[in-house]
Amino acid sequence: MKIRLGMVGGGTGAFIGEVHRIAARLDNRYELVAGAFSSDSERAKQSAAALGIAPERAYDDFSEMAEKEGTREDGIDVVAIVTPNHLHHAPAKCFLEAGIHVICDKPLSASLEDAMDLERLVEETGLLFAVTYNYSGYPMVRQAREMIRNGDLGNLRVVQVEYPQEWLSTDLESTGQKQAAWRTDPARAGAGGSLGDIGTHAFHLTEFITGLEVNSLLADLSAFVHGRSLDDNAQVMLRFANGARGSLWASQVAVGHENGLRIRVYGDQASLEWFQEQPNQLKFCRLGEAPQYVARGGNTAGDAANAVTRIPGGHPEGFLEAFANLYRDFADQVEAFPARNTMNDSELLVPAVSEGVKGVLFVEKAVASSESGGIWLSMDS
Amino acid sequence: MKIRLGMVGGGTGAFIGEVHRIAARLDNRYELVAGAFSSDSERAKQSAAALGIAPERAYDDFSEMAEKEGTREDGIDVVAIVTPNHLHHAPAKCFLEAGIHVICDKPLSASLEDAMDLERLVEETGLLFAVTYNYSGYPMVRQAREMIRNGDLGNLRVVQVEYPQEWLSTDLESTGQKQAAWRTDPARAGAGGSLGDIGTHAFHLTEFITGLEVNSLLADLSAFVHGRSLDDNAQVMLRFANGARGSLWASQVAVGHENGLRIRVYGDQASLEWFQEQPNQLKFCRLGEAPQYVARGGNTAGDAANAVTRIPGGHPEGFLEAFANLYRDFADQVEAFPARNTMNDSELLVPAVSEGVKGVLFVEKAVASSESGGIWLSMDS
Amino acid sequence: MKIRLGMVGGGTGAFIGEVHRIAARLDNRYELVAGAFSSDSERAKQSAAALGIAPERAYDDFSEMAEKEGTREDGIDVVAIVTPNHLHHAPAKCFLEAGIHVICDKPLSASLEDAMDLERLVEETGLLFAVTYNYSGYPMVRQAREMIRNGDLGNLRVVQVEYPQEWLSTDLESTGQKQAAWRTDPARAGAGGSLGDIGTHAFHLTEFITGLEVNSLLADLSAFVHGRSLDDNAQVMLRFANGARGSLWASQVAVGHENGLRIRVYGDQASLEWFQEQPNQLKFCRLGEAPQYVARGGNTAGDAANAVTRIPGGHPEGFLEAFANLYRDFADQVEAFPARNTMNDSELLVPAVSEGVKGVLFVEKAVASSESGGIWLSMDS
Amino acid sequence: MKIRLGMVGGGTGAFIGEVHRIAARLDNRYELVAGAFSSDSERAKQSAAALGIAPERAYDDFSEMAEKEGTREDGIDVVAIVTPNHLHHAPAKCFLEAGIHVICDKPLSASLEDAMDLERLVEETGLLFAVTYNYSGYPMVRQAREMIRNGDLGNLRVVQVEYPQEWLSTDLESTGQKQAAWRTDPARAGAGGSLGDIGTHAFHLTEFITGLEVNSLLADLSAFVHGRSLDDNAQVMLRFANGARGSLWASQVAVGHENGLRIRVYGDQASLEWFQEQPNQLKFCRLGEAPQYVARGGNTAGDAANAVTRIPGGHPEGFLEAFANLYRDFADQVEAFPARNTMNDSELLVPAVSEGVKGVLFVEKAVASSESGGIWLSMDS
Repeated sequence: MKIRLGMVGGGTGAFIGEVHRIAARLDNRYELVAGAFSSDSERAKQSAAALGIAPERAYDDFSEMAEKEGTREDGIDVVAIVTPNHLHHAPAKCFLEAGIHVICDKPLSASLEDAMDLERLVEETGLLFAVTYNYSGYPMVRQAREMIRNGDLGNLRVVQVEYPQEWLSTDLESTGQKQAAWRTDPARAGAGGSLGDIGTHAFHLTEFITGLEVNSLLADLSAFVHGRSLDDNAQVMLRFANGARGSLWASQVAVGHENGLRIRVYGDQASLEWFQEQPNQLKFCRLGEAPQYVARGGNTAGDAANAVTRIPGGHPEGFLEAFANLYRDFADQVEAFPARNTMNDSELLVPAVSEGVKGVLFVEKAVASSESGGIWLSMDS
Repeated sequence: MKIRLGMVGGGTGAFIGEVHRIAARLDNRYELVAGAFSSDSERAKQSAAALGIAPERAYDDFSEMAEKEGTREDGIDVVAIVTPNHLHHAPAKCFLEAGIHVICDKPLSASLEDAMDLERLVEETGLLFAVTYNYSGYPMVRQAREMIRNGDLGNLRVVQVEYPQEWLSTDLESTGQKQAAWRTDPARAGAGGSLGDIGTHAFHLTEFITGLEVNSLLADLSAFVHGRSLDDNAQVMLRFANGARGSLWASQVAVGHENGLRIRVYGDQASLEWFQEQPNQLKFCRLGEAPQYVARGGNTAGDAANAVTRIPGGHPEGFLEAFANLYRDFADQVEAFPARNTMNDSELLVPAVSEGVKGVLFVEKAVASSESGGIWLSMDS
Repeated sequence: MKIRLGMVGGGTGAFIGEVHRIAARLDNRYELVAGAFSSDSERAKQSAAALGIAPERAYDDFSEMAEKEGTREDGIDVVAIVTPNHLHHAPAKCFLEAGIHVICDKPLSASLEDAMDLERLVEETGLLFAVTYNYSGYPMVRQAREMIRNGDLGNLRVVQVEYPQEWLSTDLESTGQKQAAWRTDPARAGAGGSLGDIGTHAFHLTEFITGLEVNSLLADLSAFVHGRSLDDNAQVMLRFANGARGSLWASQVAVGHENGLRIRVYGDQASLEWFQEQPNQLKFCRLGEAPQYVARGGNTAGDAANAVTRIPGGHPEGFLEAFANLYRDFADQVEAFPARNTMNDSELLVPAVSEGVKGVLFVEKAVASSESGGIWLSMDS
Repeated sequence: MKIRLGMVGGGTGAFIGEVHRIAARLDNRYELVAGAFSSDSERAKQSAAALGIAPERAYDDFSEMAEKEGTREDGIDVVAIVTPNHLHHAPAKCFLEAGIHVICDKPLSASLEDAMDLERLVEETGLLFAVTYNYSGYPMVRQAREMIRNGDLGNLRVVQVEYPQEWLSTDLESTGQKQAAWRTDPARAGAGGSLGDIGTHAFHLTEFITGLEVNSLLADLSAFVHGRSLDDNAQVMLRFANGARGSLWASQVAVGHENGLRIRVYGDQASLEWFQEQPNQLKFCRLGEAPQYVARGGNTAGDAANAVTRIPGGHPEGFLEAFANLYRDFADQVEAFPARNTMNDSELLVPAVSEGVKGVLFVEKAVASSESGGIWLSMDS
């Protein structure tokens, strides 16, 4: 039996909604059966029809949807929330209260308070909750994490992570472009601009891959485009619990970059580098040896990567496959439920609500640091 | 309504069957409802069950399947044939005769005679027929084709195409590895080894991208692994109708390569290069200018690429998405049917049966050339 | 007539001495005629003999050399000082006082006080003085600088510069390796470890290419190798006078990197990237266009690059040629002397003593920032 | 004492003459003391003056130069011949007859007859003779050769070598460009266009690196630019004595390439790839392992590479350094003379006259093959 999936947001034309749908479809584990795709009633209906949703399960209000789906015999098992940041908390709350598992886009919420509220609710309800830090679904990211856990890099010393994009180099929001409009609007995006949109990905990836915990940071944020109120460039220094040092750069005014998430980790025995735009390989250098390239699907990939690999080496997998890996991992959890929530286990790698909270904390601390002139702040909340 | 799809071959565990299924699923245009997944009855049933096929539509004989599905009210619209080469012709014939459109894996058949028979049948029945030269589904391959048709390269002079792989560098077939076993067996693969398996891809891609026609060739084939009877390395020279020259290299003993299909085309005004393992970019060089990289989803991609692009630039698409593009294009044809079969039109780019015939002709000519000591042969059949 | 050159330091076997000698020789503008190659009298003599220096001009004491060469009819015109950092100031002072032009390796000195003393002396004597920030000699670095001055990038917003190396990842200094020994010894290297050795290069390159001035910085320095007293990893944040932001990373514990100096500059119209290990190309991206690669010697290289290019595009030039460009530029100055010292002119790009002072200031400020816990410090001295 | 060097050809402004001079100068082993830089008396004098040659040793006639230098007490030890192809044989003959060692640019001569005549003369005189197939001087080319000799690749199966350039894509010769004019003129270049200019490099590199001998070839030559009488594109198939197969492509109409010499060698145990435009690394792939990059100057470089390496890894060396390695190797031979001519020894890797003959044979065979419609010809002369 397929898992019954509903969706909040993601009406026709929205980029991320379609990504979630393809991700859910790829492994044939989910069936999309209900949705509140838009708060505009007409658009909601049309989107639902285009997606083959039965009319009575096409809602224009997520709370009504939560209530009805929560009580139907054949109600949804899981809801995917793919609205702008400020509209994550309310629907997530509704669905949790209706007994429905939640897959929520990142960042978890527009404020730390909301994020912590969700974390509390997850704990209370015992339901499953995933935050789609989707880059953690890439096979070679899993490979990197596994190699570090295996000690292949030795003691970690330095992490350089960056996420440069070009697309907000101009005042795109004033042209009516919707994606730009809400991401640069504090009311909808929260306190972070590039920080929330992409910085949180970089931050999550750092802790996910390294297993290290950031315990303090210092940020210098800029809004280079005239009239923009949220950061479009963020330089952040990181100090890790083990003494390692790091640098995180997120920018949406970095001309020439499409989606340049790149992470480099240096230990005393080896280093590795992963670049999202060429995701099927991992550069790996042992101290004193020739650099080598570990490949997805190849002889040198390990268990963690192979577990999320669909096709042989040399046949590139991409963004959608990585995203689908989170959906597949989550499907395993849903099917095992009510076995204990194992989202934080090493075997079930879907980012949990706690990781979502951490991401929002990162945004708030970085903003606070920068507003104080660029000072070190502890990550203890 | 989704298109009803059946499948011949591709039982659980087979690589290419799963690829076709994901490709069919990705855009939600097909529903897999019937299959003869194996000639082994037990395996056929288990595969069908695992795929959610109703028991009465799980066949162990493709001719029975063709007959029954051809007469059911809700019979399949399309069959996908994903068996080894020597088992393409017979089922394809059955399904065409039963009035069912066909998607057939490449090469079209194990002999030219069979290939031409299918071409004749397609003409007679007026049905739709696609050959999955899947690399033609990549957005940047479509981009390359469009640029050449637009004259961006000027008059074409030279084409260098290659498809090196490592995986048959040793006597893998003797270890019981199934994929290796049939591909190196003339009874199942036909006259070509690496030629049929990957050389045909390279050949098709060459004509697809350039719009040029090869009118003669010369081949020097080798079987480097001791005891192997089919070629595992093929060096081929090409002469095109317009006077251009080309070199095609297909090898399955090329240590270090995973799936290294690469094509470079040189005109008198510009050149371009595409590499399958980094498929989201196209190197483009105008005479006397700095080399540049056109990117899928970016500002510089054109209509043909954008038509088969799902997600923004920098979010890599891969092999499965490209494969799915053929399924999506074919779905457009199926839904337009019985409008004239437009498979050869510029707008509907699914490789047609005639391209399948050409691929088999290529194999036979190359083998004949090599067997004669490496001489030039005309491609006129 | 060739310029008569003397050398202090750089006895046989020393890496940087030989680099200077090849650089001086490459364009046939200098003749090495005197030297104090070592303070060890025997080694000084042997080195001189091996280099074809007349015995009476083989000194073991630089002050004697300055005195004698300063008074000989055929005395040296220029001295190259290639000793460890703490031994730059004293000989430089001697030779300036003897009326001899100086080429000094970087960093200018082990202390800011010494650096400023030299700057004062240069002003007083009116002599020529170059600091071999040799990376500024690469043609594509000159190209980058020219493009920015021409406004090709628009207003600059962000600079990411890094200089990672692997070679001090272990306690190499304790094995007796000389290069490691003095570089990790505060008495010989000064206050900075990786900062002085490579960070100063990165810092200089940043100001050289961008034309921007750093007006404050914040540094977080580490000594990861147990027992090391100077930094082997430096994370530095930069704020530029025009509001641009930057990040500078210098590390000698970055496993996998040989000499990975890389700079990326982002403006509101375009960006560029240069990587020292593939120095013949410059990545250049205009807003909204395809990334392109400008090549040394190619059609797209400009005047500044062409002026320091010896051979056609595609025939790679390297480190020695770039180093030699500083020697050649300096030769032009020497031959024009006593025309006004034009070292800071746009046409004569050899790094001047003032740039040497700035580099030492950078080291001292970064150390002070880090020792204060990582705080912002103004670069005003 | 430095070796006394003379030069024939290479007047001011000529590319290759200056390359030879820098190569001779780099290691301080030669002193240029005489020259017949041009047959134009005025230009010869001016060039000599600019190069600091004493007026009485500035000749405008190479036979006069050979005669005089051959009898002077302080006459040249070695002459470098850097004229167009058709002017190699006559001066080389003169200087050999005058007892002077010869360094001759490639191809050895414009005809096979001339080449064999020189080989005979070298044997008769017992003098040293080098042909500047300069790419064999690159450290990583030496590394590749050594690895293959060590058996790291196992039995060799396939060689893919190519040398594409853009510069003759248009009718440059008709614009008066001198380099283009003589290279496209059969009277000065000989029978081969791109074949002689760059194909011979590719051919030599193939045999040099692999240690294999080509025993037959088949060529398909084109002259794509209207009115050009020599080939500007050459597709060549190679069969080696050990059964290996190869493909060689040389083109001067390959838009987008500067000097793209690339060789890939595949054995049954491993493969390697070297690319001239990024010459400091060698891609190396063992069967079933991750691809790795062996670097010049790094821990993984071997003796052969280290012997011709001047500066540490990560500090790129280039074309001039590689060229200089031939001069340095030749200097070792000259200084050891009249010890037996060891040019073919593994330790003294300067390409010998016999290799020069082989290159001219390659050109003539390829032309003959193509003129016969593209047939296999044995390399036995």
